[in-house]
Amino acid sequence: MLDPWIDAYAERTHGLTVSAVRALFSVANRPEVVSLAGGMPNIADLPREAIGEAMASLIRDRGTQAMQYGSGQGEPFMREQITEVMAEEGIAAHPDDLVVSCGSQQALDLVTRVFCDPGDVILAEAPSYVGAIGTFRAYQVQIVQVAMDDRGIVPQALREAIAACRAVGKRVKFLYTIPNFQNPTGVTQTVERRQELIEAAHELDILIVEDNPYGLLAIEGEPKPALRSMDDSRVVYLGSFSKTFAPGFRIGWALAPHAVREKLTLAQESATLAPPVFSQFAISTYLHQFDWRGQIQVYRDMYRARRDAMLQGLTENMPEGTTWTHPTGGFFVWVTLPEGLDSQAMLPRAVSARVAYVPGTAFFADGLGSRNMRLSFCFPPPERIIEGTRRLGEVLRDEIDTLRTFGIGSGSGGHLYRDITSGPAPDIT
Amino acid sequence: MLDPWIDAYAERTHGLTVSAVRALFSVANRPEVVSLAGGMPNIADLPREAIGEAMASLIRDRGTQAMQYGSGQGEPFMREQITEVMAEEGIAAHPDDLVVSCGSQQALDLVTRVFCDPGDVILAEAPSYVGAIGTFRAYQVQIVQVAMDDRGIVPQALREAIAACRAVGKRVKFLYTIPNFQNPTGVTQTVERRQELIEAAHELDILIVEDNPYGLLAIEGEPKPALRSMDDSRVVYLGSFSKTFAPGFRIGWALAPHAVREKLTLAQESATLAPPVFSQFAISTYLHQFDWRGQIQVYRDMYRARRDAMLQGLTENMPEGTTWTHPTGGFFVWVTLPEGLDSQAMLPRAVSARVAYVPGTAFFADGLGSRNMRLSFCFPPPERIIEGTRRLGEVLRDEIDTLRTFGIGSGSGGHLYRDITSGPAPDIT
Repeated sequence: MLDPWIDAYAERTHGLTVSAVRALFSVANRPEVVSLAGGMPNIADLPREAIGEAMASLIRDRGTQAMQYGSGQGEPFMREQITEVMAEEGIAAHPDDLVVSCGSQQALDLVTRVFCDPGDVILAEAPSYVGAIGTFRAYQVQIVQVAMDDRGIVPQALREAIAACRAVGKRVKFLYTIPNFQNPTGVTQTVERRQELIEAAHELDILIVEDNPYGLLAIEGEPKPALRSMDDSRVVYLGSFSKTFAPGFRIGWALAPHAVREKLTLAQESATLAPPVFSQFAISTYLHQFDWRGQIQVYRDMYRARRDAMLQGLTENMPEGTTWTHPTGGFFVWVTLPEGLDSQAMLPRAVSARVAYVPGTAFFADGLGSRNMRLSFCFPPPERIIEGTRRLGEVLRDEIDTLRTFGIGSGSGGHLYRDITSGPAPDIT
Repeated sequence: MLDPWIDAYAERTHGLTVSAVRALFSVANRPEVVSLAGGMPNIADLPREAIGEAMASLIRDRGTQAMQYGSGQGEPFMREQITEVMAEEGIAAHPDDLVVSCGSQQALDLVTRVFCDPGDVILAEAPSYVGAIGTFRAYQVQIVQVAMDDRGIVPQALREAIAACRAVGKRVKFLYTIPNFQNPTGVTQTVERRQELIEAAHELDILIVEDNPYGLLAIEGEPKPALRSMDDSRVVYLGSFSKTFAPGFRIGWALAPHAVREKLTLAQESATLAPPVFSQFAISTYLHQFDWRGQIQVYRDMYRARRDAMLQGLTENMPEGTTWTHPTGGFFVWVTLPEGLDSQAMLPRAVSARVAYVPGTAFFADGLGSRNMRLSFCFPPPERIIEGTRRLGEVLRDEIDTLRTFGIGSGSGGHLYRDITSGPAPDIT
């Protein structure tokens, strides 16, 4: 059907198109498919009975506040408690410098809204979070992705990227980085690398937007100091309760230098009047009445077993020439396929073989990543993860056979899925 | 303190400044002040005990879904139920054409995001909702306000405004209108007027954005048919549970022609991944298990008593030359002061006299409205409303005395509060 409004939309909508891969993911959600695609946390073991009782008391005793309009910046008690959560990663913050958001996705949206005009540049890791790429595109920003290695983003590459942008008169607004258990690679910045990034940010006069949804989910060793704990003048920190508690309440936050925070609050009021109020009361109640640190430890142990299953499954099932990262926390492993294979092109075959993943191209703004895939170990139980890697191994071996026989991969179909990066499907967060 | 990022912000932030009137409103929230300023619904009489029990069962039985990530468009069951709510106002809609949002404020933000480039024109009533003016400004839109009378926006004025915009090459993106119990005037469009607006929209080829948070809160007669019930091709309808149930869950929605809805969904995903998920389960549970239609009747009776108290108080206490509207529903009365008085300039004096209101200038994009004020009857109980009008009457008489003695109003101080419209303070929704 023709769209009668086609000429009426804002320019910014031109980058918004429906991803062809979505239809595939709706198939991937069938129970017979092992989905290693989604980024949904496993919240099955939360003490639901007790949480339910606490919510009943909350509504009975404080329902007239909890169900009423609230502060555009976020409730003062919520911001106070968020500073306690951030203290776990060495961050000393004042509640005044926080803005609560509808998930940290909205915090990212607001930061982009406040800083970026069309044509401005945001730097990000290569590869980076698909939802961030989608948000940056929605603000008509040019995304420049900077090389990373197994210690994180490479400072020299960062310097060169900024110099190249500035040489052609581009305004670089900030570096967007996920220092812990990065989405999609699982890589964690070393402490030295963090210090180098902070130094580079000062020297090059850029802001850093630190996105840290997984930081407390270390499954080897203890959390590393946040970039924000090393610098409070040049870092906007984004946090979330989605992975340390539960995502359905949609509560995240931005911690920002004071003047920036004022702008973010005004932007939040114009966007939503106030972030979800009842959710803030609910999470506050949870933090007060439950052993949230103990729950995070439960999550860490559970995800460790799943990470171990995935690494074991990959070792047992991947064909020669395949490599992958070894995450020490978070949700994801990043796989690099043997030369000649195209992860996007072979996705339909993988789904037919009842295993799903996210093709690497989703995490690049420029079509790179066809030899990569992101596998998530967060949601399926360990035995299903191993079964998923077994199915994936078979698909890969079939592809390699085809490649050897015909001299090409199944890459001819790849362009069907070229637009996968155009919007952040919630099932591939 | 100097803001080191002052040169880094996006152009769109230039319209975002902190309102000087906010400090005053924080004083106005003291218990000794009768606030006729806020637009908070009175939710004190909700059956909190029973709602709490229902939430406990929800979390116990369906918590792994209710606390998990959800659909960017909104949960299918929620969209289904929203169509039932809209049917009360004669709207036949398909759940596919709905996008759930974080309060209807966010639906308005998304509609503006999808349609408006900087410099585009949005038409709105003169006066209009302060939060809409703030959102439109955040997208660097030019707001053109169109004259209204006691039957709503004047079609001839609408035609002239569009012609004037087009004559200078401006693109008019949509008419934003609140047909029922308008914020801030309390005026309701007659059925004939609605038909004329729909006709004009077709003839002039413009979209209508119908914002209807109060529609079911008629306190005289039955709800009038929504504009969307008269035309499904040219109307984007915005709805909300904030006034018919409770605002703290932050659930609103947009109902839009299909192609527009697709764009709104992509915009929603880039903004928040998904609107508040737990809130949708909570509201769905409420709609299923409680007599929500009965609750709306309870609200209507409660607000009728408050509206009556306000009209009685105004009749008893306003000085000669003051006029006001007679709303048949919603939350607001719009007062026009005797010539020479300036509602913005006298606000500090009113707060000193322990009564607060929103000056009329908040509802105009261009500084008009200094002889007007919005009084809300939604939150204080009837006897407090009458006391508030008594205090306001004294302030007005003092102002008139000053005017007669010195030949000027206290308008000299007015410019202090000129920026009141720059952001939608949540306490003046």
